Amino acid sequence: MSVKTPVIVVNFKTYLEASGPAAVELARLCSQISRDSGASIVVAPPLPDISLVASSVDIPVFAQHLDPVPSGSTTGHVTVENARSSGARGTLVNHSERRIKIAEIHEVIDRCRKAELETIVCTNNLAVSKACAAMEPDFVAIEPPELIGGDVSVTTANPKIVSDTVEAIRSISGNVHVLTGAGVKNGKDVSKALELGTEGVLLSSGVVKAKDRKSVLQDLVSGLR
Amino acid sequence: MSVKTPVIVVNFKTYLEASGPAAVELARLCSQISRDSGASIVVAPPLPDISLVASSVDIPVFAQHLDPVPSGSTTGHVTVENARSSGARGTLVNHSERRIKIAEIHEVIDRCRKAELETIVCTNNLAVSKACAAMEPDFVAIEPPELIGGDVSVTTANPKIVSDTVEAIRSISGNVHVLTGAGVKNGKDVSKALELGTEGVLLSSGVVKAKDRKSVLQDLVSGLR
Amino acid sequence: MSVKTPVIVVNFKTYLEASGPAAVELARLCSQISRDSGASIVVAPPLPDISLVASSVDIPVFAQHLDPVPSGSTTGHVTVENARSSGARGTLVNHSERRIKIAEIHEVIDRCRKAELETIVCTNNLAVSKACAAMEPDFVAIEPPELIGGDVSVTTANPKIVSDTVEAIRSISGNVHVLTGAGVKNGKDVSKALELGTEGVLLSSGVVKAKDRKSVLQDLVSGLR
Amino acid sequence: MSVKTPVIVVNFKTYLEASGPAAVELARLCSQISRDSGASIVVAPPLPDISLVASSVDIPVFAQHLDPVPSGSTTGHVTVENARSSGARGTLVNHSERRIKIAEIHEVIDRCRKAELETIVCTNNLAVSKACAAMEPDFVAIEPPELIGGDVSVTTANPKIVSDTVEAIRSISGNVHVLTGAGVKNGKDVSKALELGTEGVLLSSGVVKAKDRKSVLQDLVSGLR
Repeated sequence: MSVKTPVIVVNFKTYLEASGPAAVELARLCSQISRDSGASIVVAPPLPDISLVASSVDIPVFAQHLDPVPSGSTTGHVTVENARSSGARGTLVNHSERRIKIAEIHEVIDRCRKAELETIVCTNNLAVSKACAAMEPDFVAIEPPELIGGDVSVTTANPKIVSDTVEAIRSISGNVHVLTGAGVKNGKDVSKALELGTEGVLLSSGVVKAKDRKSVLQDLVSGLR
Repeated sequence: MSVKTPVIVVNFKTYLEASGPAAVELARLCSQISRDSGASIVVAPPLPDISLVASSVDIPVFAQHLDPVPSGSTTGHVTVENARSSGARGTLVNHSERRIKIAEIHEVIDRCRKAELETIVCTNNLAVSKACAAMEPDFVAIEPPELIGGDVSVTTANPKIVSDTVEAIRSISGNVHVLTGAGVKNGKDVSKALELGTEGVLLSSGVVKAKDRKSVLQDLVSGLR
Repeated sequence: MSVKTPVIVVNFKTYLEASGPAAVELARLCSQISRDSGASIVVAPPLPDISLVASSVDIPVFAQHLDPVPSGSTTGHVTVENARSSGARGTLVNHSERRIKIAEIHEVIDRCRKAELETIVCTNNLAVSKACAAMEPDFVAIEPPELIGGDVSVTTANPKIVSDTVEAIRSISGNVHVLTGAGVKNGKDVSKALELGTEGVLLSSGVVKAKDRKSVLQDLVSGLR
Repeated sequence: MSVKTPVIVVNFKTYLEASGPAAVELARLCSQISRDSGASIVVAPPLPDISLVASSVDIPVFAQHLDPVPSGSTTGHVTVENARSSGARGTLVNHSERRIKIAEIHEVIDRCRKAELETIVCTNNLAVSKACAAMEPDFVAIEPPELIGGDVSVTTANPKIVSDTVEAIRSISGNVHVLTGAGVKNGKDVSKALELGTEGVLLSSGVVKAKDRKSVLQDLVSGLR
């Protein structure tokens, strides 16, 4: 695996504040913070910006979604090999905003393994987390519904949700790294996420929509120590 | 409308021969031929390469597919506004390899109109061509099944299929430009396509998989005159 | 066409109040009202109840959705031929709660025509209504967003929405019957729907959730005269 | 669990030979063989025939697919509660001809558990089998690609594929019953399926398309002893 852990994964989603030239700008900021702090940071820009972002920064660039189809006569899809040609080093899979079929999750993981791309499969509860761990992606990012949205953070909510999921995933496979995929807003949340047994965090608006992105990122990476 | 007609639209599909750096290379060749010949050429590279291709060439870059969702919390989709931020000037819609729902076609056309992106809706038969024309995209690219694949070309097959579809579309709307979306391999086919009442062609492997892409493109644009 | 117009189409949706034995009961009530009043009534029960309902009543039974796939190795779908074997006489297509791709709409219409099943395609706005009319289903049921939900009825809302859509559909095809698919709650609304140029109504909760379904149905059919 | 094991599950798919009145006829034959032999048989007729078949036979009737949506305003779907109202006792989930998203598989299992319906989740390889077992449906029906189609049967193919999958599922959960979902044509195959550790079989055309269905069914149940 080439992505170092613990890691902070920044999902740009399709926010216009992080699209086109603004995607390159945010990726460069993440890259600078990574260089300055030594922290491992991964960025997942909008799909149309992968090539340009990957040619602009040294930190790993991930796709937000890949289609389990072969390259060739598959117009309008993004294949694993397309992503690799464009400089991507991995991909999110089954994000809550882009759920896919179970056979597709397996096929994307399989194709990515062959193409040496890494996979972060997003899951919505304990049973689905175990199910996805059984397919042995590189990462499972757990998004307990209790932690999504609002002001609830992993430090204040019942932390047992996270540690129980980590344990359940461990019972299925020892090869899967777990990320805290919801409820992270600051460095303290990052610390707590690591303390609960996960090896990093996946977050989005906390960074993308921040007034002072640099300060937010510096605070987040401080939580990795 | 900013795309000049008659036009040659080159769909790179997800071919690895036209993905990543190779997408930029092919787009540059198309751009050069356009400049040299004065012909209108549009390129539709793989989605991850839109930003990089659009920042590398002057000819219009189109997406191969856009999702009818708003920008923001829509991970893994490509929004109309994402595409515009990344430099795209239009999009294919409902390609035979990426069919979408009718309400989605309408929503993509509507969102593109507001964002000043142009739309090429692909259709598979006369009835669907009429249906799509009723939603008034900029272009309808007709792909009569009789012309898809094999060595059948629009010059040798029954040309009535194309001219009948043009006429049917005209009966629905005078604002829609029609492209010949199948059966075009060379300059002679392009001439025939124009003669039958369409205002250009949409093609893919004939260019992408060609041994000598430059000669093929030069031959194709010769048919526009 | 075997469905007589003007017609009242009752969509049972998946309401438990109209599912299983309760679907048969409601269908029998509709059948009785039809017999007593001479009014044309069509029922669309939950999919699992088609066979049982069709064997229990004489009025036409429609599916709520059919899949554009062949009969045979297509587990979990409902084919046009399945529906016919089960006694269905037609189907809703592209209901707002079950949108399908444009090529699928065309294929369902085409397969139904061959199987002598009738089609009611649901549409959400003027452009999509025209598009669907171009594919010549038996009926287009228009659901102007302005009329959906709340207490707005076709008699009180701006009636121009409906008459404009009727006119637009007429400009595309003279063979398509138009239904008012939203904003109908009582006999007065039915009268207004006919007055505006449509040939019937499609409604659901107004009947299914009514405390006194018999009175509601009697009132509705009174509007057909 | 109300379905007794070992069990033979007959999927009628959408074959016209087992649709409408012919679905009732085949279900009655299965019911008779079950009564005569004491064997546990489950039938999964086309969706529109569930109510009628369930009211005609005593053996358990399963849906071929259910949608993970609530009952009510969900036209054209089949909800778990619809299926129960119509007399179904369980459902196939994620059949190879009707794949669904992983979160949907989990939701259908969850809804079925609450509604006391049983679930048979179909899987296509070892990793996906483990993944589905982690969500603890009542049954996992494994369809090793090596066994699908042609004349390959579980008795002649490498039996290790089946026993390895059973073992892998056991390592995930002790509560999941495993069915052999491919490669079964006769009583000998049924015996072999049980010998390899599975608790029954799921088959379709072997019964539905048989010239002498009664003999085929009698032979199959003989393999259960």
